[in-house]
Amino acid sequence: MNNTQAVSFLDATLRKVYPQDFEYRQLAEERLEQLTMPRWALGDLLDLAVDLAGMTRSLRPPVARKKVVIMVGDHGVTAEGVSKYPPEVTAQMVRNFVRGGAGINALARQAGAGVCVVDVGARDDFADLVREGAIMAKKIGHGTANMVYGPAMTRTHAVMAVEAGIEVANALAAEVDVLGAGEMGIGNTTPSTAIAAVFTGRKVAELTGRGTGIDDIQLANKIAVIEKALTRNKPNAKDGLDVLAKVGGFEIGAIAGLILGAAAHRKPVIVDGFISTAGAMIASSLEPFVRDYLICAHRSAEPGHGALLDALRLRPLLDLNLRLGEGSGAALAMNVVEAAVAILTEMATFAEAGVAGPR
Amino acid sequence: MNNTQAVSFLDATLRKVYPQDFEYRQLAEERLEQLTMPRWALGDLLDLAVDLAGMTRSLRPPVARKKVVIMVGDHGVTAEGVSKYPPEVTAQMVRNFVRGGAGINALARQAGAGVCVVDVGARDDFADLVREGAIMAKKIGHGTANMVYGPAMTRTHAVMAVEAGIEVANALAAEVDVLGAGEMGIGNTTPSTAIAAVFTGRKVAELTGRGTGIDDIQLANKIAVIEKALTRNKPNAKDGLDVLAKVGGFEIGAIAGLILGAAAHRKPVIVDGFISTAGAMIASSLEPFVRDYLICAHRSAEPGHGALLDALRLRPLLDLNLRLGEGSGAALAMNVVEAAVAILTEMATFAEAGVAGPR
Repeated sequence: MNNTQAVSFLDATLRKVYPQDFEYRQLAEERLEQLTMPRWALGDLLDLAVDLAGMTRSLRPPVARKKVVIMVGDHGVTAEGVSKYPPEVTAQMVRNFVRGGAGINALARQAGAGVCVVDVGARDDFADLVREGAIMAKKIGHGTANMVYGPAMTRTHAVMAVEAGIEVANALAAEVDVLGAGEMGIGNTTPSTAIAAVFTGRKVAELTGRGTGIDDIQLANKIAVIEKALTRNKPNAKDGLDVLAKVGGFEIGAIAGLILGAAAHRKPVIVDGFISTAGAMIASSLEPFVRDYLICAHRSAEPGHGALLDALRLRPLLDLNLRLGEGSGAALAMNVVEAAVAILTEMATFAEAGVAGPR
Repeated sequence: MNNTQAVSFLDATLRKVYPQDFEYRQLAEERLEQLTMPRWALGDLLDLAVDLAGMTRSLRPPVARKKVVIMVGDHGVTAEGVSKYPPEVTAQMVRNFVRGGAGINALARQAGAGVCVVDVGARDDFADLVREGAIMAKKIGHGTANMVYGPAMTRTHAVMAVEAGIEVANALAAEVDVLGAGEMGIGNTTPSTAIAAVFTGRKVAELTGRGTGIDDIQLANKIAVIEKALTRNKPNAKDGLDVLAKVGGFEIGAIAGLILGAAAHRKPVIVDGFISTAGAMIASSLEPFVRDYLICAHRSAEPGHGALLDALRLRPLLDLNLRLGEGSGAALAMNVVEAAVAILTEMATFAEAGVAGPR
């Protein structure tokens, strides 16, 4: 390979992703073993604390500054009647996010987190919101093409969507400790299910859920639509960008990029639900070590989510039957992340507290 | 019945417990159905919001002022070698709580909750801490008797333990919105397992866990000890005070009282793990409607806990392999309670936000 060759922005980011630091993991584990509690009595919270130390290379992992990023995109495949809501709702919800009236706003406030809305592929231009600086404008296209008749986007646009996400991570890196990966896009459980089918090899019918609440007939149609898109496009599971281009979405690509960017900055990134995990799957196919920076917020009610979590070997922190998206589960999980760090940094050791250890 | 007859403090409290308010439940449900999200898309969080409205008779359930109460007691049965830790650790941990170095202190701080330590049955008197007002003194006895040889306490003391818990709830009612029920008492998974066996009718061997981390031989001994105590005392499952007196603990009785008191004040009370749920089981046997005020924080790693949750028909919010006690899971769950209220009170409706509903 020619060392003077130009390296793409995406490739340069992939090169910055390193695994968690083993020594910090071990130091954290040693500290946790000495704290005034029976061995590993706070279970998953302690596993998380070790991960956070390994990600951030610190025994005091910074987690105070939290932000949920909502990647927004529309989907040509909504023409096939895969969602219960009209595609206009994507833009209407963006305005709801900006005004602070959505579920993610309430949950982010509770968790002390900010919300950042990024347009990567909505049909609407949001000219007023962009002018006011209320949203970040990273638009690649006005919604994807209908994947039933061909690829959802070009490979070039797929790279651009991922790079848009990396740019957001880079822009936020100096002011944010923990990122949450959220999304908005009517119809986006459809591409996410297609992505799950490609990477897990499981049947579309097993992976397809009711999304925003479709009925049995609509569900059968959704399955047929996804199968048609896969047959038409033949995405290559060994090539994440090919999968993203053929059966993905702009916001899914941007989530993959946000995750890659977070990992390059050694920042924890909380994956929300099904769509967010589809983005994580794309990111992981581009650079498997990004997995070391992922925190899985919750187990979604969508069946495809469990399949993706298994493929990524991720264990969700919460299981509350959430299926809203927007980053809502990620916001909730930020409390758990803070709690894990509080244990690592604020508890006394047996020696400090004068408490007898086990016999 | 003679209406002029003196009513005990305990009975007077039981008479103040009413079920959740159905109308407020319905009003909350109607509000939640109109919010900008697909139907019931925040799952368990919405069920919890409806419960909170029903408990507090409010569409803006107050939850800002939170306190974890740690009931402390020692156990004569520790003489049988049921715990990995010496009984002195109970008192040492009380001092750790007061200094703020325990797990519950870190987790309560994260959740914005206070911690209140109540001695109901420790071997130690904590004269200095009582003088300083650092703990509440409600001592019934210096540890229970060894239940292998007879009842853990008299029936009179069992009533006093429950009443001590009610007094704590009454004292805190004016300044606290949400209570967490925690405990400290070396050996207390042993009486809790005995209580689970009595109320669920399941085999001791199926219900007994490793508590603070005992090995296989110690586990076999613990099972034998619990079976001996049950054979010796023959607690009556139809009589919660009999069960508490024969195979319970002072802190378990006080937790039952705290729960009864909270329910009488129509305040939500978050049950922590195994021991706390054993207290809830006693409370529920005295007045089944207390169940309407219980929020189950998490599924403990102790096998007896699942059996008690089934018996109480409670679904835990979290499942993080916690087995610390102290109220640690309750503190974590306070974030989820706040999140549920944030959804109910801060989200916009479809009409307010100008978002199209489902087609």
